[in-house]
Amino acid sequence: MELSPLQKERYNYAPKLPEMLKHQIAEIEAVEGKATESVSDQEEIKALFPNTYGMKEVTFKKGKSSAKNSTLRVGVILSGGQAPGGHNVITGLYDALKKTNKDNELFGFKNGPSGLLDDDYLVFTDEYIDSYRNTGGFDIIGSGRTKLETEEQFAIAEKVCQKHSINAIVIIGGDDSNTNAAVLAEYFAAHKCGIQVIGCPKTIDGDLKNDVIETSFGFDTATKTYSELIGNIERDANSAKKYWHFVKVMGRSASHIALECALETQPNVCLISEEVESKQMSLSDIADQVASSVVKRSEKGDNFGVVIIPEGLIEFVPEVKSLISELNDLMAIKEKEFTALNTLDEKKAFLNANLTSESYETYSFLPLDIQAQLLMDRDPHGNVQVSRIETEKLIISLVDSKLKRLKKDGKYSGKFSALNHFFGYEGRCAFPSNFDADYCYSLGYNAFMLILNGYTGYLSTIKNLSKSSDNWVAGGIPITKMMNLEQRHGKKKPVIRKALVELDGKPFRYFAQHRDEWSENTRYLYPGAIQYYGPSSVCDITTRTLELEQN
Amino acid sequence: MELSPLQKERYNYAPKLPEMLKHQIAEIEAVEGKATESVSDQEEIKALFPNTYGMKEVTFKKGKSSAKNSTLRVGVILSGGQAPGGHNVITGLYDALKKTNKDNELFGFKNGPSGLLDDDYLVFTDEYIDSYRNTGGFDIIGSGRTKLETEEQFAIAEKVCQKHSINAIVIIGGDDSNTNAAVLAEYFAAHKCGIQVIGCPKTIDGDLKNDVIETSFGFDTATKTYSELIGNIERDANSAKKYWHFVKVMGRSASHIALECALETQPNVCLISEEVESKQMSLSDIADQVASSVVKRSEKGDNFGVVIIPEGLIEFVPEVKSLISELNDLMAIKEKEFTALNTLDEKKAFLNANLTSESYETYSFLPLDIQAQLLMDRDPHGNVQVSRIETEKLIISLVDSKLKRLKKDGKYSGKFSALNHFFGYEGRCAFPSNFDADYCYSLGYNAFMLILNGYTGYLSTIKNLSKSSDNWVAGGIPITKMMNLEQRHGKKKPVIRKALVELDGKPFRYFAQHRDEWSENTRYLYPGAIQYYGPSSVCDITTRTLELEQN
Repeated sequence: MELSPLQKERYNYAPKLPEMLKHQIAEIEAVEGKATESVSDQEEIKALFPNTYGMKEVTFKKGKSSAKNSTLRVGVILSGGQAPGGHNVITGLYDALKKTNKDNELFGFKNGPSGLLDDDYLVFTDEYIDSYRNTGGFDIIGSGRTKLETEEQFAIAEKVCQKHSINAIVIIGGDDSNTNAAVLAEYFAAHKCGIQVIGCPKTIDGDLKNDVIETSFGFDTATKTYSELIGNIERDANSAKKYWHFVKVMGRSASHIALECALETQPNVCLISEEVESKQMSLSDIADQVASSVVKRSEKGDNFGVVIIPEGLIEFVPEVKSLISELNDLMAIKEKEFTALNTLDEKKAFLNANLTSESYETYSFLPLDIQAQLLMDRDPHGNVQVSRIETEKLIISLVDSKLKRLKKDGKYSGKFSALNHFFGYEGRCAFPSNFDADYCYSLGYNAFMLILNGYTGYLSTIKNLSKSSDNWVAGGIPITKMMNLEQRHGKKKPVIRKALVELDGKPFRYFAQHRDEWSENTRYLYPGAIQYYGPSSVCDITTRTLELEQN
Repeated sequence: MELSPLQKERYNYAPKLPEMLKHQIAEIEAVEGKATESVSDQEEIKALFPNTYGMKEVTFKKGKSSAKNSTLRVGVILSGGQAPGGHNVITGLYDALKKTNKDNELFGFKNGPSGLLDDDYLVFTDEYIDSYRNTGGFDIIGSGRTKLETEEQFAIAEKVCQKHSINAIVIIGGDDSNTNAAVLAEYFAAHKCGIQVIGCPKTIDGDLKNDVIETSFGFDTATKTYSELIGNIERDANSAKKYWHFVKVMGRSASHIALECALETQPNVCLISEEVESKQMSLSDIADQVASSVVKRSEKGDNFGVVIIPEGLIEFVPEVKSLISELNDLMAIKEKEFTALNTLDEKKAFLNANLTSESYETYSFLPLDIQAQLLMDRDPHGNVQVSRIETEKLIISLVDSKLKRLKKDGKYSGKFSALNHFFGYEGRCAFPSNFDADYCYSLGYNAFMLILNGYTGYLSTIKNLSKSSDNWVAGGIPITKMMNLEQRHGKKKPVIRKALVELDGKPFRYFAQHRDEWSENTRYLYPGAIQYYGPSSVCDITTRTLELEQN
């Protein structure tokens, strides 16, 4: 296999572990703290998890391990979208497992949770593991989006594990996958089959975050990659002085990625979905906000700029939210009828007849290509694929209209020429930054410590992340601690609450304090490409978000 | 001013000079070689450049400088699109100039050649220069696209130079700008005003390349940036296993960038415009080529892949080339009439009446959004803005149609879900790679050596670039040597020939030998982000193109 020079060199990188995990396995002691409670709905959640609710926090310390020295067989699954560092969770897990007992074995279930149900797996060897150390991607075993959530699936999972004498499953996933990990752990506990389940917090979106998870892995590398590109574009804008660049970034509903990129690059405008919702901003309000920066800058002769837009933005605009929700409901019942229509005109007539007049008006107000995108193929759940809507072009079109009106009224005399970009897939499989390489390796290593010490229904946690890795704190938290009840498809379900950007949190407040200055002036920061080598100040830094939250 | 950690660290990087330029200025001797001739049309070009034609090649060696030690004042101009390393050409020029005589002065004319005409300039100081060392962008003085080509402009330029007692102008630009530099040099020589002109070869596109210019600066960094992203996308495709990614990359007419990115990342398909033209491929042929890879991979269960598309592709498809040329001609005479039309239907009727039937058929065959893009605002020369046409979406749409037909005929049973990307602005202002930082610094330093030794109408050249910088060869070549006559706007003009990808050159041949293997299998290479530090194998490498051409 041919390899790039960087890939060859990255194989030699030795990820840094927290001090407390550097000892011999027999010298690592699991110290239990307080019993936990779920963040809310305690009674209901306790009832749903009779065997795994209320367990104690765990921290690892130098001491004497009380773990038994039996041979262990562990399975691992990558669940959902890619995030840089996934491979290192697996190499950390593997190294801890082999260091403990060379007869221990690690099974990788292929292509996501479905690999467990289909009994499709590989058994890791040194040689195979070594060819994935410190690399990006989830190609080591593949990932998938099958949800493990029904009793039927759990029964199959139990059988497959028993067939291979697997003692524990590690699920690397986001909020949904970890919720399901807890449900699976409860099922195994109730069935007394002795199979443990441990989760690891993955997602570039940064929305799996709470008082016990400081950041999900992949967020650091992905935001550094997007910030590199945004910084380069800013420098281009500031050199050519003729374009406004509108950059949409991934992140699903939450705006953590957009906010982190804004903190890294100081663009002229960064929209934050959570603020749009909180202030009940309309599309017209959003266009006004951007246009205001364009006008102010043009008055200084600067007819260029950069705007960051979070992927999920339009779902947070009340009028569009209503429209999308009506469209989803409508398609759920009349999809066939709709699909049979051929022309856009017929489709519009159908919408006119079936949507509320407010929503139809919103729809008609949108540019033609966005109208078409809203009617494209829906996702597997039958919903509008919001990520495929070119929000960046929508905003450009709305701003352009605003500016034309302002020009007519003599309130604007600049030039507005706009370009659009969307960054998402570019960052999900980058070589993990040193931070993510270390964090993920530690998460995986630590996951095995939890298994070795008999825990189940726990999430592997590494804390104190804004400090150097020596000072990181490794341990585990019962997944039920992070749960609350939420309405899902008409039913109340126990889930890990998705973390949106908090408008009273330090990262947003820092942004809000500076954005007027950035909006009018050119205060761009150029982060450049992720560095894996060199001075510590360039290769060992983590996100501004973490730094602001913790320091 | 706030700075990113990398920017602060890059200030400390000391660019590497060729061995022969490391000596004291008084110990650098200009050794003249053979008299030169233009690459063709020698008589005509000699007649056009009576004062600057046929000059000798120059190489610098350790020896005794014969340059006079007078105080020199030099002006510098950035011309055209940004390319990483432009700042280093200026810092190299500045350092050589100050090292020679601390009373020498460097003037930076602002926002491109128009700065010289408008007498809009700054005088560089140590402090100002230091804040731009090893950084991307052209923001140090800005760039612009004004062409210096008329006698009136030359007369103004002469006046401005005389006002400031400027002895020489360095023009940093692409083929057009260097052509104009030669014409300006000839003008100054004819007017015996004693002002020298030196050019430096800039462009990310890689199309300013010939037997004396091994590569233009910026090509290395830009292609590394795009290859980083393409590699990340490949790893994502190979992890998620559900999308075909279509990636368009900048590069104007030439496909050097696409080819270099393909050599760096080994995608499933890379289209090369020059081959499309040479084989007279139609849009349908192109779609067949891509569809063939999709079908073969689907038969192995791989419903994912990556396709690279050069920006200028559609101009090389004979049928589209005719269409665009007819559209340009038509708009040149009937733009007003056309602009007055309101609906797409009216516009199409107008085109039907005014284009040849073949071209109208080609137009009608295109997807609707591409039809609309062809009718958008034209560039300042009145031409269709090819770079704004979403060729990547066009190809997806054509391939999709092909596959639907194949499926109907039972010849394809895979799934085809496509995503599109365009990378251009992301790479033009990246921090220059070590190669570009060194190369550019050397080009600028060397440009001053040419000035000091009294040369004019020369291009600063650094050769032997695939070797380590110690072995680089610094010198100068009369710009007229690279010229031939070409038809421009109905007139024969002396110009530097644009270098397209040579189908019998080593880089393309290497690609052609491997592409069948890449098309069917997954042979992706993941180059990762540009590294400025670390092992030499990751931070001191140049392009595969140069390596294949020279080794």
